[in-house]
Amino acid sequence: MDTKPLLSSIESELQRQISRLDAPRTGSFHEMLTYHMGWTGEGAGPEATGKRIRPLLVLLSTAACGGDWQLALAGAAAVELVHNFSLVHDDIQDNSEKRRGRPTTWVKWGMPMAINVGDALFVMSNQAIIDLKQNYSAEIVLKAAEILHDTCLELTRGQFLDMSYEERNDLAVEDYWPMISGKTAALLSACCHIGALLGGADEAGQDAYRAFGHYLGLAFQVQDDILGIWGNEALTGKSAASDLIEGKNSLPILAGLGANGKFAARWKQGPIRPDEVQELARILASEGGYETATDAAKQMTDLALMSLREADPQGEAGDALFELADKLLKRNQ
Amino acid sequence: MDTKPLLSSIESELQRQISRLDAPRTGSFHEMLTYHMGWTGEGAGPEATGKRIRPLLVLLSTAACGGDWQLALAGAAAVELVHNFSLVHDDIQDNSEKRRGRPTTWVKWGMPMAINVGDALFVMSNQAIIDLKQNYSAEIVLKAAEILHDTCLELTRGQFLDMSYEERNDLAVEDYWPMISGKTAALLSACCHIGALLGGADEAGQDAYRAFGHYLGLAFQVQDDILGIWGNEALTGKSAASDLIEGKNSLPILAGLGANGKFAARWKQGPIRPDEVQELARILASEGGYETATDAAKQMTDLALMSLREADPQGEAGDALFELADKLLKRNQ
Repeated sequence: MDTKPLLSSIESELQRQISRLDAPRTGSFHEMLTYHMGWTGEGAGPEATGKRIRPLLVLLSTAACGGDWQLALAGAAAVELVHNFSLVHDDIQDNSEKRRGRPTTWVKWGMPMAINVGDALFVMSNQAIIDLKQNYSAEIVLKAAEILHDTCLELTRGQFLDMSYEERNDLAVEDYWPMISGKTAALLSACCHIGALLGGADEAGQDAYRAFGHYLGLAFQVQDDILGIWGNEALTGKSAASDLIEGKNSLPILAGLGANGKFAARWKQGPIRPDEVQELARILASEGGYETATDAAKQMTDLALMSLREADPQGEAGDALFELADKLLKRNQ
Repeated sequence: MDTKPLLSSIESELQRQISRLDAPRTGSFHEMLTYHMGWTGEGAGPEATGKRIRPLLVLLSTAACGGDWQLALAGAAAVELVHNFSLVHDDIQDNSEKRRGRPTTWVKWGMPMAINVGDALFVMSNQAIIDLKQNYSAEIVLKAAEILHDTCLELTRGQFLDMSYEERNDLAVEDYWPMISGKTAALLSACCHIGALLGGADEAGQDAYRAFGHYLGLAFQVQDDILGIWGNEALTGKSAASDLIEGKNSLPILAGLGANGKFAARWKQGPIRPDEVQELARILASEGGYETATDAAKQMTDLALMSLREADPQGEAGDALFELADKLLKRNQ
């Protein structure tokens, strides 16, 4: 299935949702949102918008359940708006100055304005999900809204854990899963769940799609963690081993801490310097960090594909879902 | 009507909504929310919770339309959660260190955590409004959610205007109304509108309640502006003329700038010192700032009461609505 028409419709629907602020007196507020979305300002364009994987998952799930993806567009926009709200607030919280190669919203307009930009994107995600009422029964729309809101609470939980872990020195692998379940897997899970709901899947079908999204998210995050230490800079576009320097509580690192060897001893002494990175990555691998993470990635990938087979997505959209999963799960190769 | 049972039920419902975070691993996150709500930590108690005027307006409107207020509790909680989300983010944006006499959330837990606390309160407002489905049809719940979301967009608009005005030197009275319509009136309007909807009012009835809340909000804010310059410190509990020192774009000040006299000349020279305040408040009054604001307050109060009479609230709850409006509109006396 050619996903180009879907991606182009997603972009139009997002622009329509965000145009709610394109009004007298709030024109420059609107511009802050269109900048963040990658449509306007310095460096605008496909590189700046992100891949829109989440809304694509919604539409493909809808179509693979036999529904008309065009009717689900507002739902697709809703999840992408949630994702972008969380990015804007994340960038403030993490003090990140760049996103997709461009200055972040808070860098351009200051922290107070950026908080409000994130809040507005969040509000619009709520408005978008309610817009589904043009095409679906009130009961279906309420169910979709409920899934979205529960997911957002998971996001705040994951964010809380991530931030609270920064001050801790006693983290273990068990602390990892609740954090990434909230931060990464919850929204991907909601995409597939909402897509299946809008495609007319029954409860069992919805559960299978939801599980697919959940494991896809976990597998994706673990892979990201592996790439963050042993990635190929030329392929990933970000500096490998940056997670070591940033002190990120990623799975390989938590596994390394659990091994309580040379890696753990060095980690506890304070921030890692760039010149130590290569050697420390080697030590971490030799102490089981790499193996634990690759094993987990494989396990989560297997669970994701098993759930997707159980969901039994139909037609060209079903093929596209398998292809997308494949692409996301094999991006280190 | 004795509002104590309503206030006590509101508090229980809010606690129930917020208990969603009272779970393993997020206990201290939950605590941040209960602290902000005034229930726990240093200085907890009735002084710290605020007056819960917004949820009270929801329940009284429901009852005054002939509905059962107990069924509307989740809707009442939703508006109070929105209010509190906006307070938490406001305090960060304004760099305010105290709220109701206690250190603000960002002061206690840092800015990144406080952003997330506000986000969580916002999510819970969405979850609360959907909870209405236990007592109302899906169509009614969707309508209530729509009112709430549209209101939240107004809040972000008002917040944007307020922040963008800080850098401007050319503001006029016309710039005032869109800002406070978003920042203050939108949510009070939504309270009465949602209350009437849940009480079973028809479209015309809902419109009248909505208008009542809107004008009540405008009148309330203008009064607050008057008290912020010429208030009686002993009665208001906050230092009079603080708005002059803080450089707030309040109605009397914008009117004074429009007069382009001595007040405007001094204002444009930079921040006001405490020792200038008394004289400057006198000059502002002599140049029409006081009169413009009191005229506007009177006009908005008249419109609020006219709308409330048109809404024709019934029974003891109706009487309580008139009393509440009276109390809010005459608090400078």
